[in-house]
Amino acid sequence: MTRRLLVIGGDAAGMSAASQARRLCSAAELDIVVFERGRHVSYSACGMPYLVGGDVASVDHLIVRTPATFRDSYAIDAQLGHEVIEIDTGRAAVRVRSLETGSERWESFDELVIATGAIAARSAIPGSEIDGVFGFRTLDDAIGLCRHLEDTTVRRALVIGGGYIGLEVAEALVARGLDVTMATAGEQPMQTLDPEMAVLVADALRAAGVALHLGERVHEIARSSRGTLTAETPTRSLAADVVVMGLGTRPNSALAAASTIPIGPTGGIVTDARMHTPVDGVWAAGDCVESRHRVSGQRVAVALGTHANKQGRVAGTNLGGGNATFPGVIGTAITRFRDLEIARTGLGEAAALAAGFDATSVTSDSTTRAGYFPGAAPIRTKLVVERPTGRLLGAQIVGGEGAAKRIDTLAVAIWNRMTAEELSGVDLAYAPPFAPVWDPVLLAARKAAELTERERAQP
Amino acid sequence: MTRRLLVIGGDAAGMSAASQARRLCSAAELDIVVFERGRHVSYSACGMPYLVGGDVASVDHLIVRTPATFRDSYAIDAQLGHEVIEIDTGRAAVRVRSLETGSERWESFDELVIATGAIAARSAIPGSEIDGVFGFRTLDDAIGLCRHLEDTTVRRALVIGGGYIGLEVAEALVARGLDVTMATAGEQPMQTLDPEMAVLVADALRAAGVALHLGERVHEIARSSRGTLTAETPTRSLAADVVVMGLGTRPNSALAAASTIPIGPTGGIVTDARMHTPVDGVWAAGDCVESRHRVSGQRVAVALGTHANKQGRVAGTNLGGGNATFPGVIGTAITRFRDLEIARTGLGEAAALAAGFDATSVTSDSTTRAGYFPGAAPIRTKLVVERPTGRLLGAQIVGGEGAAKRIDTLAVAIWNRMTAEELSGVDLAYAPPFAPVWDPVLLAARKAAELTERERAQP
Repeated sequence: MTRRLLVIGGDAAGMSAASQARRLCSAAELDIVVFERGRHVSYSACGMPYLVGGDVASVDHLIVRTPATFRDSYAIDAQLGHEVIEIDTGRAAVRVRSLETGSERWESFDELVIATGAIAARSAIPGSEIDGVFGFRTLDDAIGLCRHLEDTTVRRALVIGGGYIGLEVAEALVARGLDVTMATAGEQPMQTLDPEMAVLVADALRAAGVALHLGERVHEIARSSRGTLTAETPTRSLAADVVVMGLGTRPNSALAAASTIPIGPTGGIVTDARMHTPVDGVWAAGDCVESRHRVSGQRVAVALGTHANKQGRVAGTNLGGGNATFPGVIGTAITRFRDLEIARTGLGEAAALAAGFDATSVTSDSTTRAGYFPGAAPIRTKLVVERPTGRLLGAQIVGGEGAAKRIDTLAVAIWNRMTAEELSGVDLAYAPPFAPVWDPVLLAARKAAELTERERAQP
Repeated sequence: MTRRLLVIGGDAAGMSAASQARRLCSAAELDIVVFERGRHVSYSACGMPYLVGGDVASVDHLIVRTPATFRDSYAIDAQLGHEVIEIDTGRAAVRVRSLETGSERWESFDELVIATGAIAARSAIPGSEIDGVFGFRTLDDAIGLCRHLEDTTVRRALVIGGGYIGLEVAEALVARGLDVTMATAGEQPMQTLDPEMAVLVADALRAAGVALHLGERVHEIARSSRGTLTAETPTRSLAADVVVMGLGTRPNSALAAASTIPIGPTGGIVTDARMHTPVDGVWAAGDCVESRHRVSGQRVAVALGTHANKQGRVAGTNLGGGNATFPGVIGTAITRFRDLEIARTGLGEAAALAAGFDATSVTSDSTTRAGYFPGAAPIRTKLVVERPTGRLLGAQIVGGEGAAKRIDTLAVAIWNRMTAEELSGVDLAYAPPFAPVWDPVLLAARKAAELTERERAQP
């Protein structure tokens, strides 16, 4: 008999689950229907800032696959404009509303994948619904912003938030020639970096002409009688022609919470490593779930395309009869602001202390290539290590071209619970166009090893 | 009483050992003398091709430190133009000849570091002493070549050998606008790559206009009556105005061999992990020693600046009263030919089979950035894995900008004996300017994991 898989949400996690299930099960074995309330499936949300900035010429480039492709190549029925508004785990059915017609119907399932993604982190700032004020979560947000920016009288942009989205949107707006202001609630941009790393990002923002207001939370946005948008912080009023809010996300788990599916303290849906929820036949994947952080051991909610793809694939493998597990996360992330590359993995120093580690750190400055080689750029590497074992707990890199992807080397080291001493001996690649003879990663590891050895010697 | 350290060879390994010993021991504790037969100490041999090609503007950039710096900042007496011609381990003394005066003397030691480096791999081709024919091992070789190329009638260059040096010199000569021919004994350039990877290098050489003659070993070089250099292969005669030989190296261990210091089957000096030879008070480091390959378990001789630096540092630490070990190598190497980046680590497929592994492999093609992102370049990744465990044994990468340094991620994975399945789950960094959502490393690992899983399922 043909089983039936329903997938709620047609983005990275949902479509990965559907595609992987199809690889394992023929259409005769498994019927697959995806409900997506938006107008697109399977697009690169991470590419949206680069659409705004002009690196990506057309929105079509961000759409990985269309419903027609899924139908024709995968026999997957992806229904756009369909929102699931209730899950009845007892009846093994979901209630679906067509956003076009308003009609509702129940659809039953044998297997269900919840991939409802993320929503904006906090309740919207008053005024966030005003025309000219944009969130930056969906492709429609990005398309709307691009359209708004076509108006050449739009000259002044305000970016609210200094995280990944804020930084990437600021780069895009600078690239389009706007006067850009950034307001952040925190005392630095990039709260996922430690202060001595984040200062390099603040410097780069200012060097690019961004008016940076740190520690100034915007509490209201309004439109003045002359048509200008004004954002109020405790200390000033910021004027703009366009406002983009990049305030982070939290798991969109309300639908699951309203049924019997457990939600964790992070607000994410609880699953095991096979991406199965505690409810029979119900799986969850992507930004709506919580994951295990392999260094802290804690549950965390990390909204990132890579995890969504992997988790979706794991869910699809398992419900298709295979066996796969998602091994957890270590908080690896990467971005850039113009020429400055930024990356982190593992625990920051404060997070390591908060997680109960006896942590210390070293920061070292080097160059991305041999110092004498053209294009050699500064690179700063920070390592957080456990005292006295020297175990690597976290790493951060900020630097020029070629700097940031070195975080992967550190991510694999942290994943394997290496000590700084062990890492300092690893056979990494050296040639003058690619690294100094002591790669910045090795140099940082050596310094961290020396620090922990000194501390052991002087207890 | 002041002990006395003698160091034979003033390049990466020797000067690292001397400097590290000085960090641990004051001048009152340890007298340090370095004998270097050449005219320079502590220069970047790996940077020499880029001096020839013009990326590096002056030879001064390649000289890391001068004897004056070592004397003034480190109280290290580095004597240029002094060749050690005999080691008497029984008397704990070496015989030194001044190349300027021809005078000889005995110098006694408490500790000796042998860092005599490498020499050309095979006895010179007849004619290799002719004016206009260059080796490429020492800084004086590079300086001589640069001087020869200033003659604008030098238009046709022949590069003998297609390894790292051959490739880098060919890039340099192409950059200088010469007509470049390359002749290799092997059937492909870059014998350290497997054929499906090396073919990309051959394609790039030809695309750059290099006349490539594979499988044609040059057995003689002569100068014709009209002044042209001619190199003879079994099938043709190649004419050139300048010839550069890059034929690899072997450990320069003759001096050690003539004393009582054991030499291994690779021709390299035998040491333990502390870089101590079996002879009391005698240490060795750098290109003249053999190292343990952590994957094959075999002893290997790898001439590379990174190992030389690390090994010298380990020897210096230990003879200075500290405790350090060199953990071995896994054969990581990196280079480029113009826009094409090339890297490898671990065992190639043939080497893995030869080492007794039940090895298989997968090769996958991807892009360095998200496919839609400007600058996304092709990247080919090959993984060699053990069947049926899936353990990673080796990796090779050939691709555009940003491709090759990904080898470090694989090097750390191989170092930690990870399986392809484990690696495919690691939290690597993703953002569109830096990687597709499945980084090429993860994609390759996933494919390798699927292959070994399939093979387990169908025994």
